[in-house]
Amino acid sequence: MVAGCAAAGLRGVGLWRESVAEVGVGQAAAQVRSAGLQVTSLCRGGFFQQPGWYDENRRAIDEAATLGAPVLVLVSGGLPADEPDLAAARARVGDAIGALVAHAHAAGVQLAIEPLHPMYAADRCVVSTLDQALALAAPYPAEVVGVVVDTYHLWWDDRVWAAIARAGAAGRISCYQLADWVTPLPAGVLTGRGLPGQGCIDFGRFHTAVEAAGYTGPIEVEIFNETLWAQPGQDILAATIDSFPAP
Amino acid sequence: MVAGCAAAGLRGVGLWRESVAEVGVGQAAAQVRSAGLQVTSLCRGGFFQQPGWYDENRRAIDEAATLGAPVLVLVSGGLPADEPDLAAARARVGDAIGALVAHAHAAGVQLAIEPLHPMYAADRCVVSTLDQALALAAPYPAEVVGVVVDTYHLWWDDRVWAAIARAGAAGRISCYQLADWVTPLPAGVLTGRGLPGQGCIDFGRFHTAVEAAGYTGPIEVEIFNETLWAQPGQDILAATIDSFPAP
Repeated sequence: MVAGCAAAGLRGVGLWRESVAEVGVGQAAAQVRSAGLQVTSLCRGGFFQQPGWYDENRRAIDEAATLGAPVLVLVSGGLPADEPDLAAARARVGDAIGALVAHAHAAGVQLAIEPLHPMYAADRCVVSTLDQALALAAPYPAEVVGVVVDTYHLWWDDRVWAAIARAGAAGRISCYQLADWVTPLPAGVLTGRGLPGQGCIDFGRFHTAVEAAGYTGPIEVEIFNETLWAQPGQDILAATIDSFPAP
Repeated sequence: MVAGCAAAGLRGVGLWRESVAEVGVGQAAAQVRSAGLQVTSLCRGGFFQQPGWYDENRRAIDEAATLGAPVLVLVSGGLPADEPDLAAARARVGDAIGALVAHAHAAGVQLAIEPLHPMYAADRCVVSTLDQALALAAPYPAEVVGVVVDTYHLWWDDRVWAAIARAGAAGRISCYQLADWVTPLPAGVLTGRGLPGQGCIDFGRFHTAVEAAGYTGPIEVEIFNETLWAQPGQDILAATIDSFPAP
């Protein structure tokens, strides 16, 4: 993938911890660097309900630093079985992030709170809107805690445009990620994303909003899709580049 | 179903148009009435993007009146293929409802705008939050246009508690419906609902909020679930009654 991205003229690539672990963090960092690429973000930390979350997230921060990734994406985890109160669960996520701030700051890594679509609120992420993510980030300096703007998770929200403007003004847009909304959703609703243009999301409006908010960072295309994943890497890369909406 | 509900001591039942059509509206009305039951609501009008929506919704209003149903539930329909702008699509839903207000008023039927979970915004309902439903209802008298509070669709929304209070204060809570959020979601995400208690929704908080908002109407349990539907009607009814959270 690194070779393909470099050959295609891309300047950066977002990585997932699982893939990085397969080759080793140091080796992955060296590969990306020698190809002349930047690691745009590392996915992911979070899942603060799991035992050992504190040490695991510190390790993820260290990995991001080793990779030269400026951003570690945080997916909060879902509603704990013994906690019916979403707001309380969300508040605990804020506490957990607070516990990581000093380490992230020292490592030079920005923690990026990613709101996931409300259909994941029970089992994957109790942070469902950009407003909620911004509220969780608010107590901490922007260079240490930001938010992810992912079209797939946020397109339905009529408040997202104002939230993007506020996020940009606060310097808290850590990542901008693209995926399109395609129906019908598959069982488990995890791998139903489409390349931009395959679904119904108004990417022009997102681009305009993110640019107007002052964001000048990389744009990541992040597609969870079994059919796409089954294709050769070169084809996926070409399709992804083709799908990128012209500015 | 009518016989079973009456035998179980229930005082009302919500009906769907398709089921009513199977026996005929007049016959259905007579059956329910002779069993001593009220029709609590009729599902559903809406789908305003479909050709013929105006006549179809007038027919639905007439059917509700014939059945003695005080409420016709409206599901707006999804994002039209040629319309990338969700807000514009939602505004057109408001216009369509406005076109039906006089007929509904004359028929003595309250139109109830139902916000559906954001995972349906593309293909089923562009109205995703109680705030949006209230905004669409606002131009019209409360006795003609209200909203549906359905736990399944709204539980994830941190703004729903304030919206329920506003809806109640405005006299616009037309229906209160229960279903629980169960994961993983099935393909198509339509029939994954659970009986109250099978999932993660905090029904106590919803009951408290709806009561505090002054709602004294019926409570409907509406479960889309293939496994449940495959069971004998008596068993479904017993399970539904058992699942109802004690006040």
